[in-house]
Amino acid sequence: MNINEIAKLAGVSRATVSRYLNNGYVSDEKKERIQEVIDRTGYKPSTQAQTLRTKKTRLIGVILPKINSDSISRMVAGISVVLKEAGYQLLLANTENREKEELEYLRLFSENHVDGIILIATIITREHKRALKALQVPVVLLGQRLDGYSCVYQDDCLAARDVSRLLLRGAGKIGCIGVTQQDEAVGAGRRKGFLEAAGDAGIAEDAVSFLETGFSVEDGYRAMDQLLALCPGADAVFCATDSIALGALARLQEAGRQIPEEVALAGVGDTVSGRIVSPKLTSVHFYYKTSGKEAARLLLELLDGNEARKQIKMGYRVEERGTTRQR
Amino acid sequence: MNINEIAKLAGVSRATVSRYLNNGYVSDEKKERIQEVIDRTGYKPSTQAQTLRTKKTRLIGVILPKINSDSISRMVAGISVVLKEAGYQLLLANTENREKEELEYLRLFSENHVDGIILIATIITREHKRALKALQVPVVLLGQRLDGYSCVYQDDCLAARDVSRLLLRGAGKIGCIGVTQQDEAVGAGRRKGFLEAAGDAGIAEDAVSFLETGFSVEDGYRAMDQLLALCPGADAVFCATDSIALGALARLQEAGRQIPEEVALAGVGDTVSGRIVSPKLTSVHFYYKTSGKEAARLLLELLDGNEARKQIKMGYRVEERGTTRQR
Repeated sequence: MNINEIAKLAGVSRATVSRYLNNGYVSDEKKERIQEVIDRTGYKPSTQAQTLRTKKTRLIGVILPKINSDSISRMVAGISVVLKEAGYQLLLANTENREKEELEYLRLFSENHVDGIILIATIITREHKRALKALQVPVVLLGQRLDGYSCVYQDDCLAARDVSRLLLRGAGKIGCIGVTQQDEAVGAGRRKGFLEAAGDAGIAEDAVSFLETGFSVEDGYRAMDQLLALCPGADAVFCATDSIALGALARLQEAGRQIPEEVALAGVGDTVSGRIVSPKLTSVHFYYKTSGKEAARLLLELLDGNEARKQIKMGYRVEERGTTRQR
Repeated sequence: MNINEIAKLAGVSRATVSRYLNNGYVSDEKKERIQEVIDRTGYKPSTQAQTLRTKKTRLIGVILPKINSDSISRMVAGISVVLKEAGYQLLLANTENREKEELEYLRLFSENHVDGIILIATIITREHKRALKALQVPVVLLGQRLDGYSCVYQDDCLAARDVSRLLLRGAGKIGCIGVTQQDEAVGAGRRKGFLEAAGDAGIAEDAVSFLETGFSVEDGYRAMDQLLALCPGADAVFCATDSIALGALARLQEAGRQIPEEVALAGVGDTVSGRIVSPKLTSVHFYYKTSGKEAARLLLELLDGNEARKQIKMGYRVEERGTTRQR
């Protein structure tokens, strides 16, 4: 059964059936005849063909750097609440932090399949900017700020500064385990905030032992292993993420260090795991779920034809727990 | 620029251009003329229209119950390796453990968008069976066994039995924190294995304190809170997942219990977090990444037209660590 046969059985033109299926104008009498044929024959228009005609899929693509992450799953949960309420379904694309795949999914989603995109961004290269510019559907960036685009991002710098102030109480030799500074938010932003706090505490940048690592717990473990060799007397270590801090904590405890008496430690992101280790991890809470909701709302505005591109910087809350010293 | 205009400029029929674009037979001379027009005009066939014609999207849909999970991200990583090598891209659908959404995504993926589906399954209801039967694309189930379908699943029962044998050394009063038995694998299977070990240790089923909870660390924390009230003298607690065990561990440590001397604890799944808590969690390792690869290979076989539906039960490895007693 296809649209031509429906038209024939209903005694109307093919164009009328097409208009009917796409909610265009059709007289009440013809509407009734077409619906009667559809009911009788059990005809079901192919979604793909419909998509081609109406250009609406009611799908939103969300591109994310990894799936096994507290912060990202909270963002996705927030995105999901708002978009599902608005009648959209989500398709997730996991890039495993590979730039090439990010670009491929941007193209895939843009060419077809979705009405809009939320990009949970990490590193934004020139290639990314080119791909974003070429998009044929609205896009919102989550987690990074980029001129000319709707964005929702965290106040990484001040959050890192404030938690570092707790960390650096009574500290002499300090370390910093960060991620690539190509990542403006987690890499450059949090390092900058940490250095501000160090400066306020009278510690010069060249007195700090810096290490750069990846985003996993294992990366944090290995980086702390190196730091112990590089700077065995470190008594306070800032970690750019909770995952890194949790790996670092495991390595320090293995080495028999007392936390926080001998070494204080702080992370960023307030993950669930940070609340179940002992001692509990001092960190900064970001409103990731709310950020996801905000990003989804910005996307809905763009889909509504509202061209004003907002940029939203979210607040944070320092969580003082057991891995930092009281004074 | 559309296909009709290309045909006109190349002096061939519309059908010839269509055949050319879909790799059908076209004489070399006409091929050259069409390609010349395409090059000159910069014509790019719409992927959606192409999809409609060739019915191939080179996309695979993966339906998963949650994204913030060690086990699931390992499965997805395995799926990803194999399918990307075979030239497919993945679209993930996160159902947040909601049955209705699982069914909706099955329908969405089946109607269009993807060439095949991998369902990381939890609960399989009659509705699921109906939806699976109605699928118009091949499907592989990962994590559950279902007659008549290609599946890859874990040996939940024996894995739970073997880790419980370590757990129950020297135990008198025992507890079990599980999940809904509608989940054949994690709920029913692991409970059965635990009970076998309890039986072998001479402990009757009605001497065990059972609690049912959800899949998160917080669920484990709350369940252990209840268990402490219900059975304050429990000296060994089996947890159906590592996440549950990690929440339980945090609650026990808060209550000042010595682990494993006063209370022994075991989980299932060998998550990263279980290796960073102190003491480290006794658990069972499942080959989740390999399972994902196997599922992807089964799907490729189905896509190749190989109708034989295999069912693969994976092995496991007990990880004895610090939360169980030596004897």
